[in-house]
Amino acid sequence: MNILMMYGSLREKSTNKALANAVAGLAPETMKIETVGLHELPFYNQDLESSFPESAKALKEKIRSADGIIIVTPEYNRSIPGVLKNMLDWTSRPYGDNAWDGRPVGVLGASVGALGATLAQYHLKQILSYLNTHVMGQPEFHLNATDKFDAEGNLTDESTKEHIKKFLAKFQEHIAMFK
Amino acid sequence: MNILMMYGSLREKSTNKALANAVAGLAPETMKIETVGLHELPFYNQDLESSFPESAKALKEKIRSADGIIIVTPEYNRSIPGVLKNMLDWTSRPYGDNAWDGRPVGVLGASVGALGATLAQYHLKQILSYLNTHVMGQPEFHLNATDKFDAEGNLTDESTKEHIKKFLAKFQEHIAMFK
Amino acid sequence: MNILMMYGSLREKSTNKALANAVAGLAPETMKIETVGLHELPFYNQDLESSFPESAKALKEKIRSADGIIIVTPEYNRSIPGVLKNMLDWTSRPYGDNAWDGRPVGVLGASVGALGATLAQYHLKQILSYLNTHVMGQPEFHLNATDKFDAEGNLTDESTKEHIKKFLAKFQEHIAMFK
Amino acid sequence: MNILMMYGSLREKSTNKALANAVAGLAPETMKIETVGLHELPFYNQDLESSFPESAKALKEKIRSADGIIIVTPEYNRSIPGVLKNMLDWTSRPYGDNAWDGRPVGVLGASVGALGATLAQYHLKQILSYLNTHVMGQPEFHLNATDKFDAEGNLTDESTKEHIKKFLAKFQEHIAMFK
Repeated sequence: MNILMMYGSLREKSTNKALANAVAGLAPETMKIETVGLHELPFYNQDLESSFPESAKALKEKIRSADGIIIVTPEYNRSIPGVLKNMLDWTSRPYGDNAWDGRPVGVLGASVGALGATLAQYHLKQILSYLNTHVMGQPEFHLNATDKFDAEGNLTDESTKEHIKKFLAKFQEHIAMFK
Repeated sequence: MNILMMYGSLREKSTNKALANAVAGLAPETMKIETVGLHELPFYNQDLESSFPESAKALKEKIRSADGIIIVTPEYNRSIPGVLKNMLDWTSRPYGDNAWDGRPVGVLGASVGALGATLAQYHLKQILSYLNTHVMGQPEFHLNATDKFDAEGNLTDESTKEHIKKFLAKFQEHIAMFK
Repeated sequence: MNILMMYGSLREKSTNKALANAVAGLAPETMKIETVGLHELPFYNQDLESSFPESAKALKEKIRSADGIIIVTPEYNRSIPGVLKNMLDWTSRPYGDNAWDGRPVGVLGASVGALGATLAQYHLKQILSYLNTHVMGQPEFHLNATDKFDAEGNLTDESTKEHIKKFLAKFQEHIAMFK
Repeated sequence: MNILMMYGSLREKSTNKALANAVAGLAPETMKIETVGLHELPFYNQDLESSFPESAKALKEKIRSADGIIIVTPEYNRSIPGVLKNMLDWTSRPYGDNAWDGRPVGVLGASVGALGATLAQYHLKQILSYLNTHVMGQPEFHLNATDKFDAEGNLTDESTKEHIKKFLAKFQEHIAMFK
C-alpha cells in the first residue's frame, strides 16, 4: 500500500511533524509512506487557477495515486492551521476536479495539552466529508504531546507507539474496503 | 436492500416526515425502506441502562440488520433536535455495544428557508463519524421546503424528486462498497 | 447576582451534576446560584406549543429573570446530550419568544477522559450564538473528571477548585458588561 | 465609531470583496470603515514569531484600535478560506498577545448558492469564541449572491441593501455594549 502523509505545520521542530515521522517509522512493511510538507503552495486564489501552480498539480496527482492519505494536524485557535486549509482549497480545485473524491483518509493530531487537536480534527473531518472522502471514524487519535518526544523529536512514549500501530492496522483495513 | 429510515421530528405534519415519506415513495424496487418514528424512546439516562428499554433494544436491532440507514433531520437552533440526539445516545449504548459501528448512513434535511438544515446535518455527521459509521459525503441534500409540498404533505416539486432519486441511486452504490 | 445553573444529565450520580454542585458550593457570596434539573420537560414537539408545558414556561421565566446562566454539559458521542438540546429547543420557542436573547452564559463541561466535553461545549456554543446569547469565551472549562471527585460526588481536587473560582470571578465580570 | 473590515478572498473580482464594498458604502455617517485585504501576510510559522512580520504587527494594531471588526467570509469546502484562517493565526500570536481579546466582531458571508457561507461562518465563530471576542449572534447574514451584484461588483439588490443596513445598525448597538 502506498500512503501519502501530510502534516499541517511549517515549523522546523513541529510536534506534528515529529508525530508524522513517528507514524512513518512505525508503519508495517506492507505500507510505504511518503511524507510531504506544505511549504511550496501559494495562497489559494481563484484568479490563479488558469495557470494552476505546479506544486498544487503535483500534490493532486499524489493524492489520486495513493491508496490512502494520512493527515496529521495541529490545532490553532480551535481549528486547523491556515496552511492546511489552503492545501485543501487548492487540491479540491478547479471546480469538478476534486482530487479527494473517494479517497480513504486517516486523521491524527497532537497538541501540547489535553485536547490533542481534537477540535481541529473535527473541523477537518467536516471538510473531508464535503470533499467526499472516506474518513476513518475510529479509532480517533488525539495526542497530548507533553513529554512524549525527546529533544530531537523522536517519539519515546511506548503506549503512544502502540496506539499508532493500532491506528495503522485499522487504517489498512479501512483502505482495503475501498479497493 | 433493506433500508431503515428515521426522521427527527415528532410533529404530526412535520416537513421532514413528509420528506421521509417522499423518499420512501421514490425508492427503486431494489430498495425496501422501513420508516420508524422516534416517539417511544424515553430520555437517555445511564441509570436506565441496566433495564435497557425495549424500544431502544428493538431500534438497535433494526439498525444492525439494515443494509443502510437514512436519517432525515430538521434543524432546530443550528443543530439537530433533542429527540434525534436522544435516539443516537440510546442506540450507541451501553459502552462497547454501539449499534452504528460500520453502518452505511445517508443524511438528508429540510427546513423552511434557504439553509435546508445543513448546520444540523453537519453536527449529525460529526456524531456519526465518532460512531464509526460510513456517512455518504456527496451528494449533499439540503432542501428549502418552501412551496415544495402540498397541504397533505405530498412532494410536488419535480426537481426535488429528481434530486431524491439521484441521492438514492448514489446511496445504493455507497452501500454496495461495504457489503 | 442571581445565577441559574443547569446540567445536562439525568443520571443520579452524574459527574456533571457533581460538578454543578461544586460550582454552587464555591460561588462567592455575591452570587446566588439556583440549580435546576431537566427531568420534567417532555420531548419538544411543535404541536404541543399551543398548550405550552408549564415546566418549559417556568424555565423560560427563570432564564429571563436570572442575571446570568451557567450550563454544565457532559459529552455524548462528541455532542451535547439529547436532554440538554431538548431544553434549548423548548426554551427558545415559540418563534419570536426566545428566552435566551441577550442573556450572558457560561459553559463548563466534564468527562471521564482528557477531552473534558470540549466538543459538546462547542456544539452548545454554536447553538447559543444562534440564540443571541453572550457566551463567555475565556476561560474555557473542560475537566477530565478522573479522580477529581470522591464516592459521594464531592470535588476533592484543589486545582479544579481554583479553576472554578477563577471561572466564576471572570463570569461575574462578564455579566457586569451587560447590565 | 472606527470599524475595521476584512474579507477572506484574494480574488480580484471576489463576491465577498464586493459585499465588503457594499457594506462600506451603506455604513451610516457615524461609522468610519477601513477595509484591509489579506494579501501581505506570509504563511504562519511559529519559527517566524521572533521576527514578527510587519504586516501582521500592523494588522494587530488595527484590530486593537478599532471599535469593532467586521469579517466577510466566503466558504471553501464548508469552512473558511486558508488565507482567512492564516490571518487569525498570526493576529492571535505570540502566546499571550492575542489582538482579538475582548473585541466586538460582526460576521457576514456570501456564496453563489443557497447556503450563503453559513458553515464557514460558524467555523469562524468557533475560532472567535476561543479568541475571546464578542461576536454578534443575531442577525445572521448569509447571502446567496446570485444576481445580487452587477458586472462591476456593485450591489444592486434592494432587499440585500436593507439587510446590510439593519445588520450595521444592530452592530452599532452591539459595539456600544462594550464601550
